[in-house]
Amino acid sequence: MTQPWTLHEDRALPADPVTRPIAREIYQQTRSLPIVSMHGHVPVEWFAHDTPFTDPAELLVVPDHYLLRMIISQGRYALHELGVPAVDGSAPVEADPRAIWRRFCEHWPAFRGTPTRFWMEHELVEIFGVTQRPSAETADAIYDRIAAEIADPGFRPRALLDRFDIEVIGTTDPAWASLEHHHALAAQGMGERVLPTFRPDPLLLLDNLTFTHDVLATGAAAGVQVNDYATYLDALRAQRLRFKAAGGVATDHGPATPDTTPLPDDDAARLFDAAFNGRPVTGAQVAAFSAHMLFEMARMASEDGLVMQIHPGVERGHARRMTRRYGSDKGYDIPVAVEFTRALQPMLDAFGHHPGFRTIVFTIDEDVYSRELAPLAGVYPAMRLGAPWWFIDSPEAMRRFRETATETAGFANLSGFVDDTRAFCSIPARHDLARRIDAGSLARLVAEHRLDLDEAADTAVDLAYRLPRLAYAAR
Amino acid sequence: MTQPWTLHEDRALPADPVTRPIAREIYQQTRSLPIVSMHGHVPVEWFAHDTPFTDPAELLVVPDHYLLRMIISQGRYALHELGVPAVDGSAPVEADPRAIWRRFCEHWPAFRGTPTRFWMEHELVEIFGVTQRPSAETADAIYDRIAAEIADPGFRPRALLDRFDIEVIGTTDPAWASLEHHHALAAQGMGERVLPTFRPDPLLLLDNLTFTHDVLATGAAAGVQVNDYATYLDALRAQRLRFKAAGGVATDHGPATPDTTPLPDDDAARLFDAAFNGRPVTGAQVAAFSAHMLFEMARMASEDGLVMQIHPGVERGHARRMTRRYGSDKGYDIPVAVEFTRALQPMLDAFGHHPGFRTIVFTIDEDVYSRELAPLAGVYPAMRLGAPWWFIDSPEAMRRFRETATETAGFANLSGFVDDTRAFCSIPARHDLARRIDAGSLARLVAEHRLDLDEAADTAVDLAYRLPRLAYAAR
Amino acid sequence: MTQPWTLHEDRALPADPVTRPIAREIYQQTRSLPIVSMHGHVPVEWFAHDTPFTDPAELLVVPDHYLLRMIISQGRYALHELGVPAVDGSAPVEADPRAIWRRFCEHWPAFRGTPTRFWMEHELVEIFGVTQRPSAETADAIYDRIAAEIADPGFRPRALLDRFDIEVIGTTDPAWASLEHHHALAAQGMGERVLPTFRPDPLLLLDNLTFTHDVLATGAAAGVQVNDYATYLDALRAQRLRFKAAGGVATDHGPATPDTTPLPDDDAARLFDAAFNGRPVTGAQVAAFSAHMLFEMARMASEDGLVMQIHPGVERGHARRMTRRYGSDKGYDIPVAVEFTRALQPMLDAFGHHPGFRTIVFTIDEDVYSRELAPLAGVYPAMRLGAPWWFIDSPEAMRRFRETATETAGFANLSGFVDDTRAFCSIPARHDLARRIDAGSLARLVAEHRLDLDEAADTAVDLAYRLPRLAYAAR
Repeated sequence: MTQPWTLHEDRALPADPVTRPIAREIYQQTRSLPIVSMHGHVPVEWFAHDTPFTDPAELLVVPDHYLLRMIISQGRYALHELGVPAVDGSAPVEADPRAIWRRFCEHWPAFRGTPTRFWMEHELVEIFGVTQRPSAETADAIYDRIAAEIADPGFRPRALLDRFDIEVIGTTDPAWASLEHHHALAAQGMGERVLPTFRPDPLLLLDNLTFTHDVLATGAAAGVQVNDYATYLDALRAQRLRFKAAGGVATDHGPATPDTTPLPDDDAARLFDAAFNGRPVTGAQVAAFSAHMLFEMARMASEDGLVMQIHPGVERGHARRMTRRYGSDKGYDIPVAVEFTRALQPMLDAFGHHPGFRTIVFTIDEDVYSRELAPLAGVYPAMRLGAPWWFIDSPEAMRRFRETATETAGFANLSGFVDDTRAFCSIPARHDLARRIDAGSLARLVAEHRLDLDEAADTAVDLAYRLPRLAYAAR
Repeated sequence: MTQPWTLHEDRALPADPVTRPIAREIYQQTRSLPIVSMHGHVPVEWFAHDTPFTDPAELLVVPDHYLLRMIISQGRYALHELGVPAVDGSAPVEADPRAIWRRFCEHWPAFRGTPTRFWMEHELVEIFGVTQRPSAETADAIYDRIAAEIADPGFRPRALLDRFDIEVIGTTDPAWASLEHHHALAAQGMGERVLPTFRPDPLLLLDNLTFTHDVLATGAAAGVQVNDYATYLDALRAQRLRFKAAGGVATDHGPATPDTTPLPDDDAARLFDAAFNGRPVTGAQVAAFSAHMLFEMARMASEDGLVMQIHPGVERGHARRMTRRYGSDKGYDIPVAVEFTRALQPMLDAFGHHPGFRTIVFTIDEDVYSRELAPLAGVYPAMRLGAPWWFIDSPEAMRRFRETATETAGFANLSGFVDDTRAFCSIPARHDLARRIDAGSLARLVAEHRLDLDEAADTAVDLAYRLPRLAYAAR
Repeated sequence: MTQPWTLHEDRALPADPVTRPIAREIYQQTRSLPIVSMHGHVPVEWFAHDTPFTDPAELLVVPDHYLLRMIISQGRYALHELGVPAVDGSAPVEADPRAIWRRFCEHWPAFRGTPTRFWMEHELVEIFGVTQRPSAETADAIYDRIAAEIADPGFRPRALLDRFDIEVIGTTDPAWASLEHHHALAAQGMGERVLPTFRPDPLLLLDNLTFTHDVLATGAAAGVQVNDYATYLDALRAQRLRFKAAGGVATDHGPATPDTTPLPDDDAARLFDAAFNGRPVTGAQVAAFSAHMLFEMARMASEDGLVMQIHPGVERGHARRMTRRYGSDKGYDIPVAVEFTRALQPMLDAFGHHPGFRTIVFTIDEDVYSRELAPLAGVYPAMRLGAPWWFIDSPEAMRRFRETATETAGFANLSGFVDDTRAFCSIPARHDLARRIDAGSLARLVAEHRLDLDEAADTAVDLAYRLPRLAYAAR
């Protein structure tokens, strides 16, 4: 390959000559829409402090577990050689960002066919003006190019918010967050652009090793002295309202299963007391309390109007020894099968028609789209079906989603596109990819005379912009 | 959109320019074939009485839970505002059919991408001559147009049977049915056109609240005084024969699971006695008896030759409060995962090679096509794999079925197309859609040189006509 | 169809006019590559004795359960009429190979849309020069043609190895194999071409009726006197090394589930003692010991470097009565759902980063590709994801595999194509089909500008040749 590396105008659009021009026409309706990014993991500090990025490895490799996991899978390097410190100090972390970058570049062929390849290509060419395909040979030149770019003030986080045309971005924050950064941003007029999201998972998990500490911290942040189940609920309610006051529109829940079976209050109170006071609880009790509290979170949501995001079904830290050594979120979280129909039944029966309640349900177990989630989202007014997420935020999986979910759920019961990343620079690439895939899927419906072109174009704008805005409107 | 609303000649055929002409050629072989509709829910009374339809809402909206559920999901109207009475009298049912029709029309965009959109478009244009896309603005004009059509004597049920070219249609009838309407139809020479189907679900479910009543009613219809397990079996046998004598060719079974493990007769008799005499039975006993009776139904089928349809795996009335208020079949039935390999093993081991036995197995859990149902149908002579059903009777799901089931089951082990609807006017649209999708799938095999054109055309006729005729031939 | 039967040059390539020429170009890179066939069931005796094949039925019909099961499913013939003896002597086996061949040919239409059709068409035309489509009418002429071909010395097994350009072929051998045939082949310079594979399933299954016998036989072959758990492990270790010395590179495991939870050694020893001495063991104990031994097999693999193939999830002999009558492997093995994420966790946590360990995991439960297997293979260096296998070694299923597995696993974490057959003559057809499907899938990535053409061509060679070579390199 000697010609300069460029992005093809029609990338990720369908190949067939009848469908592509229609897809192109639909994509023109959405390509310049602002980005709505309601579910992400970019640290709020980046925007509050607007600190410059340090180097290409720190920006693009080390925080991105998609990249790390693929390099690890090839067996040549360990995580500490990719910039991830071993928390047990058993090995020195690589201190040279250029060495990390080289290791990433030499693995470029391993990313063929993955969404990372698509996103990174977009980022390198579009954001950093790179003109060479990554490889051991080109690594240094690309490194220098990116390093020069990020030294520019136009590359600081807030400037990028503008450059990327991000209209609104959600951060994910612990339930006990002080929200000081969000308050500071609000004071600077960015309160409706960078929104906190309330993530209470550790507070609902009785075998969380720091359960009592986390509950008390949440109480402290909320100004509630927690000493029993009732005050625990008070603290949750109060802290939810503090998030809402700071611009928050949603809560985020990643339980082991989506079971929402409520317990009698007395039983819940007894289980809470046991864990809060350090007495042992069984696995079954942990599961029962989690299900109960998911139900209670739905009740609170129906009262305060925060949108409830649920994304269950991940075995965290599958490689125990690696997780002990390098910490969590390093690429070792693996999905498991999830049952939704019976699990969500108590919650949807109770709140599924409540005008104040909205839940968005995500899955990485694709089997449930046509069998469970589309049928549920296709009847309960309170439920929206979330976009393909995490491993399945990719071209083929997004197409499968359109083909397995839409026929039963309809478009109007979807969340629209939702990225989910801590790789800030990948956000425009992810939204662009989703808009291209949606344009292609809609174009097929037009080419097969199953939808008129005006309807398809209108639906594309729904998916890219209006539906996420609607789905995440606090109620 | 200012041009009149029309149906494109090539709708639902593949877009790519190589495959479409082949698909068109294959579709020409099937488009005019008569309709074989062996598994449906149109009330036999319609044909027996040949009563005119009252109004567009009563005909097209109120009985169709696909329509109701999508409107409900948008949160603007409740079921009683769509013509469904609240059985608790808590709200007045909408009495104005035109208001119901308007509510449907204003929701037209919510149906984009759903099979309902495709069917309804076909019905409105092809059957009623509508030339405007439904919307709040066009609702009244369309209503008037349909109302005028259905006032015509040519629109009475029997006339439509001819107009739709329905060669044979199955109705679904309770096990205790007197079959008087079928007898009346037979007396008028329609006994081979409108066939009863024996549906004994409530008789196999020990926790059915009206179990004793239903069993006695079945006995009464069959002329058998039931007082124990042996006479219960006698009544089932006798009533099956009465259905067969009235033209019936099949039975229909919708158990919670497809478990077919038989019990020792003594155990089965004891469980029957308990439930029949109003003594409590456990959930496990209910499940065990259901499995046992499914096995017994297979045995009876191998004796009397009635084809045994099985379609398990639906959680009925998921929104308990809505079901209490509005009754069943209102769009709140949600699928669950189903295991078939082990569940069907006892039945298939015992009767799977029996020359008198035929079972057609349906699923809405698509995951089992390639893993379980196609491998089973691909070896047991007695088993046929049913067409995609209910939520998955849709373009994409039908394509997935072809791609996941055919390679292992072959075409010859399929039921051919089977609609499943209480929306009478949608029957031609459903068969037309299936024929188009099959033509497209077969055309792809031809375009990829995996099948010759003459074979594809022959297979298309199999799927549309010959296979359902064969699959439902009483043995 | 009057024109002679031929194979289309572009068969199984995508139909659309943009993608096909790209696919053709990619396929040119792989069509002439030698065949690497590491996972098969061709008997080693064929190569050791180089015996001529007897007749077309014996060669092409009787040993191929894909063919048998489809004919059986049509209900006209029983297995003994297809050349499979009833072991209970209840019916005489068909002795006339021509009659068997006719029965196969008259069922030709039943194979439409199945991979068997594709493979057999390739074999008949390409290997045997047949020019007529099989049918009742053409059966005899085709029979004569094949019979004439196989009478030629150029059709003996070793000659076919050359003609098929099979660079290396694995056989599957019982754990107690003497390996005499492999030693004989090695003595004739074929030791690196025909490799044994160690299959210890019966030794890990405590309720195997011949458990003690099989264990003692393995010990005898290995030269180890087994009398307890420790010597049992010694025998396994020693026999693995004998396989390795005879050219073996891999072991093959078909457990009921992929559970790999180890037991304390004392518990394992106690369970072994019980079964070895004929005392009863429970189902739970059987499962626990199987899981434990899978873990131990991984440990041994990390020590001796034999590649560990795992393919769980099959209910063997589903039709019990047929299996009692005709034996196993007659088409009645049916897949069941399998859980991998939690099942493989102990093994992968312990050995997943071990430089000496390599495991290749196969599934016929496709649901797990995107949810479980691709995420696992995409991070653990020791794991490779096996190619679609058995029922899913077919055009559509291979495409689904590319679309559901590649995005998360990447190409580099796949095994490349692996056939799995006892139908020797189908091997070239299977590899050719896989190369065509891969070319088509890669061409789509190129046509959608998601991969450059040089990358796609390079990846095609990886999948067809380099990856299986790498994946099965003993470590």
